[in-house]
Amino acid sequence: MKSKDNSDTICALATVQGTSALAVIRVSGSDSIKIVDSVFKPYRGADLSNTSGYNLRFGGIYKDGLLLDEVLVSVFRHPHSFTGENSVEISCHGSNYIQQEILMLLHSKGAKMAKPGEFSQRAFLNGKMDLAQAEAVADLIASETAAAHRIAIQQMKGGFSKELSIMRRSLLDLVSLMELELDFSEEDVEFADRTKLNKLLSEILSHISELIDSFRLGNVIKNGVPVAIVGATNTGKSTLLNAILGEERAIVSEIHGTTRDFIEDVVNLGGVAFRFVDTAGIRQTKETIEILGIERTFEKIRSASIVVLMLDAGRPEGFEDGIKQLKANIDEDNQKVIVLLNKTDIAVNLGNKHNSRLIEDMVNSIETISADFSVKILSVIPVSAKNQTGLDKLKDLLTGTQKNLSIGSNTTLVTNLRHYQALQDARTSLLRVVDGIDSELPTDLLTQDIREALYHIGEIVGEINSEEILGNIFGKFCIGK
Amino acid sequence: MKSKDNSDTICALATVQGTSALAVIRVSGSDSIKIVDSVFKPYRGADLSNTSGYNLRFGGIYKDGLLLDEVLVSVFRHPHSFTGENSVEISCHGSNYIQQEILMLLHSKGAKMAKPGEFSQRAFLNGKMDLAQAEAVADLIASETAAAHRIAIQQMKGGFSKELSIMRRSLLDLVSLMELELDFSEEDVEFADRTKLNKLLSEILSHISELIDSFRLGNVIKNGVPVAIVGATNTGKSTLLNAILGEERAIVSEIHGTTRDFIEDVVNLGGVAFRFVDTAGIRQTKETIEILGIERTFEKIRSASIVVLMLDAGRPEGFEDGIKQLKANIDEDNQKVIVLLNKTDIAVNLGNKHNSRLIEDMVNSIETISADFSVKILSVIPVSAKNQTGLDKLKDLLTGTQKNLSIGSNTTLVTNLRHYQALQDARTSLLRVVDGIDSELPTDLLTQDIREALYHIGEIVGEINSEEILGNIFGKFCIGK
Repeated sequence: MKSKDNSDTICALATVQGTSALAVIRVSGSDSIKIVDSVFKPYRGADLSNTSGYNLRFGGIYKDGLLLDEVLVSVFRHPHSFTGENSVEISCHGSNYIQQEILMLLHSKGAKMAKPGEFSQRAFLNGKMDLAQAEAVADLIASETAAAHRIAIQQMKGGFSKELSIMRRSLLDLVSLMELELDFSEEDVEFADRTKLNKLLSEILSHISELIDSFRLGNVIKNGVPVAIVGATNTGKSTLLNAILGEERAIVSEIHGTTRDFIEDVVNLGGVAFRFVDTAGIRQTKETIEILGIERTFEKIRSASIVVLMLDAGRPEGFEDGIKQLKANIDEDNQKVIVLLNKTDIAVNLGNKHNSRLIEDMVNSIETISADFSVKILSVIPVSAKNQTGLDKLKDLLTGTQKNLSIGSNTTLVTNLRHYQALQDARTSLLRVVDGIDSELPTDLLTQDIREALYHIGEIVGEINSEEILGNIFGKFCIGK
Repeated sequence: MKSKDNSDTICALATVQGTSALAVIRVSGSDSIKIVDSVFKPYRGADLSNTSGYNLRFGGIYKDGLLLDEVLVSVFRHPHSFTGENSVEISCHGSNYIQQEILMLLHSKGAKMAKPGEFSQRAFLNGKMDLAQAEAVADLIASETAAAHRIAIQQMKGGFSKELSIMRRSLLDLVSLMELELDFSEEDVEFADRTKLNKLLSEILSHISELIDSFRLGNVIKNGVPVAIVGATNTGKSTLLNAILGEERAIVSEIHGTTRDFIEDVVNLGGVAFRFVDTAGIRQTKETIEILGIERTFEKIRSASIVVLMLDAGRPEGFEDGIKQLKANIDEDNQKVIVLLNKTDIAVNLGNKHNSRLIEDMVNSIETISADFSVKILSVIPVSAKNQTGLDKLKDLLTGTQKNLSIGSNTTLVTNLRHYQALQDARTSLLRVVDGIDSELPTDLLTQDIREALYHIGEIVGEINSEEILGNIFGKFCIGK
């Protein structure tokens, strides 16, 4: 499914909309150079139609004979461009008015406004990158931490695609041999050695399983380690969140997801993104809509890797309830628990004992209660979210839980849900092959399952694709990409 | 005051910070090519040091041996660049993380983070543009309407500078002749014909006065026509503003000014920007801080070109008070008044007469009261801000007041307060010369005043400048410009 040679010409703003020194407008398609040429006059050098690829021209963009802006124009000639088509990039002044006017002008000359991801889609259709690489470009743009960036770069450079390609080739060789066997079936020849076949299948299956398993880590690196903050109302959950965000928010703000129901706050701690979910609101209402909201909150708690329980040092009588409530809602096998003893500033004023003794007693009491209810906790940390004391200990503990996140520069991690699902489908098909060999199924049934596995692996890089799949994937990209 | 040949190398993000397909990082200074070369490997073609100006390279930016991003790099060689220095533009993926990492990498290799406007300041210091042109680039970027854009483009292209340069040359010729006279003063020669001198002076003065007068219009085009919305509390001022903004806000949002106290809402109606000031809050309190706020509101009303008085159709008893209050606060010679009869939807429900008759009566009554208090009004428009009826009439009337705003493509309008002040200073000096000739002042005193006028005109284009003036001007530019 290669794109036609005389493709439509599309244009879009490729930089963030707004006021700044520069903005870049991207134009791609067979007529892109001609269209831009019709509104552009270079101050020096040849016009664009006579400009080679990878050359720049400085000049004016004119609308109705009047100068609209002075711009730099970069020319790229098919196939040496991002999309593989003739392309032009216009670097104009970063005024909203000018950006709009130039786009409208190009539109009036026949360029269409690009759909989200349409440039990348063309790059894919023209064989400039496979689907996994195109998706990696989107991940690269969205990456906010060193680790997420590293995985995206590696995938963009084709590391993942290469692994898949080797896997496909082995399976293809295998299936060819088996199909040859079918052609000669009357002669009872066995080209494909069943033992070798089993060995190869088990190698590929183990590789696929590794990739599937890497998704948990890959997903965490891409989207952040999910941390749920739980506790009774008024224990200071929001204050804690604000205290953590207030300091660290500069780099990372929010993850805007097309498929997420919540907008959550992501904080970069020691190079790892943590996605905090404030579960304020639990048990406060009985209204239907609210209960739906609470149900979603419980889901969020269940899907967190780390659960932070807030207890109020001013209300030690609530410790037991808090821990019982926690016990009922977590999955101890897969979740780590940290307890924060909050409001230690107030507690100190209430108590008569020596300050640190008082808090020490509370910590011991919480540890005892946890043991009584057999809740495993990583640590009880006394904090004052309000005065921002004790937060460094919390941050250290959080980053400590993710020590294994440090990845080598060549490790492949699956970070994309679509890839994860395709790999699972491929595994299912191959497991059917293994079973089929065991039960001595006829070769044609075996090859059918191998072909199915090949199909699923091919889906990842886009060897197999449909308009619908492509629409789903590229529709989530930003405009201008 | 030319910049040194071996200038520091500076770098900055030139596009809007955020997540998008592309972002551009600008690097300028004598080492810019060398610095970028040290972190960049082209995939094809020569390295940057061996790349000619106006050429592009595609390749990787590497940090500690690891690929940070795949980028397009544009090379510009002194003096053929925006700044006149060696320059590089890096077009990278629009990820916040990547933008930061590249800037930090360049910094580690010796590039400094650019101050606001530093690229433009270098362009000025290297003679690539004069000061008025550099200021026009900033205006161009900020321009949100066709008219503002047109003035900025013309000024950027040097139209204004050329007019000033012709004016300066005439004055310089004049002053040279007069100074020659001084040299030969013992011989009682009169090189400069006093009648010709007077004629020339009056021509230049008339030109300067035209430019000074154009500032009122120029300022309106650049910053928007100031419209104050006044009226008693609860007449629907904010609803009106929201109704107008709601529809039109798409293109123009807010003007962010460094020197403005208020953030006002600007709306583009028929190509003209209107700056609406909601004066909600008048007469609501007697507290000191509030009174200060109200005083500023009155100032805003006084500086508006158009005052929109809101009257409540549900409270006809308040019409007289509203008009009296208005009368006390406006400057009728310079301000146009529009009365809006709001809440006509409610009024209709209250009244017993035929709807349109009821409203007609109210309009007549308002016109009578206005005549009684001799307040000139453009029109009384019945509206319902809530139901958004009648607003089109208001918009038409507003744009109608600005018909004279249509400017030819070659008209020079002064839009910059600094230029306006310098022109006023120049006029003052030249008026002293005219007086001096009348009262037969000695030639050396006359030439002194002409030199002063020359100084002030020279300030505009930057023939005369100081570090402090430059700091003031370029400090208001955006980073990366």
